[in-house]
Amino acid sequence: MNTLPDIYRHYQECLNRQAWDELKIFVAEYVYYNDQEIGLTGYLSMLKQNYRDIPDLYFKAELLVADSSYLACRLVFNCAPVGAFMGLPVNGRRIRFSENVFYEFRDHKICQVWSVIDKATIEQQLH
Amino acid sequence: MNTLPDIYRHYQECLNRQAWDELKIFVAEYVYYNDQEIGLTGYLSMLKQNYRDIPDLYFKAELLVADSSYLACRLVFNCAPVGAFMGLPVNGRRIRFSENVFYEFRDHKICQVWSVIDKATIEQQLH
Repeated sequence: MNTLPDIYRHYQECLNRQAWDELKIFVAEYVYYNDQEIGLTGYLSMLKQNYRDIPDLYFKAELLVADSSYLACRLVFNCAPVGAFMGLPVNGRRIRFSENVFYEFRDHKICQVWSVIDKATIEQQLH
Repeated sequence: MNTLPDIYRHYQECLNRQAWDELKIFVAEYVYYNDQEIGLTGYLSMLKQNYRDIPDLYFKAELLVADSSYLACRLVFNCAPVGAFMGLPVNGRRIRFSENVFYEFRDHKICQVWSVIDKATIEQQLH
């Protein structure tokens, strides 16, 4: 568990198991998400909300690029949000979309996240 | 001009100068964009269209992560699309948005691009 890709894979397993008591192993107390300091508590709330919105949420990395401090990941989701998602009336339909996300690590923990979700592709699937 | 970040910075300068005759130095003949083979010709058409839609387009990397074959970049744009952009009525307003994008290189050229533009953030700026 030394390189960022190794740590990140363990982090994803933690999310996929919804092992919330382990989240603090991977995420810093003062974590920022898209330039907002949300903290570990806010990060956990966000993840729990994600699972309420998308009960079959599963994190899968399609592509990983890392150096010694930063990791970039292309995540691909294939899931069925129960209601609205990103303001779109998905309402239980199965959709496929990507998220391109960057993580900054400090002391082996995620301290910053910059995420972009492919909303345009979701819109196309609802037409 | 050996490492991917070096090559990529030269590629961005090429775009910012709109030096279209140099594009083939950086982009492979058979390039794929978001899993579609658009080829160098299609890639060039897309870039020229981007500059027609956004005359003050300027490529600026906020964050770069690279290994030996892949490069991920967070681009930040501060620009004024003249008409609709991503289906949104921007109509000359100045907007700020990010693009998180991955590139695969082969023989020092971009052969695959997976891009996600932060449409949700643009929508918020139009309200």
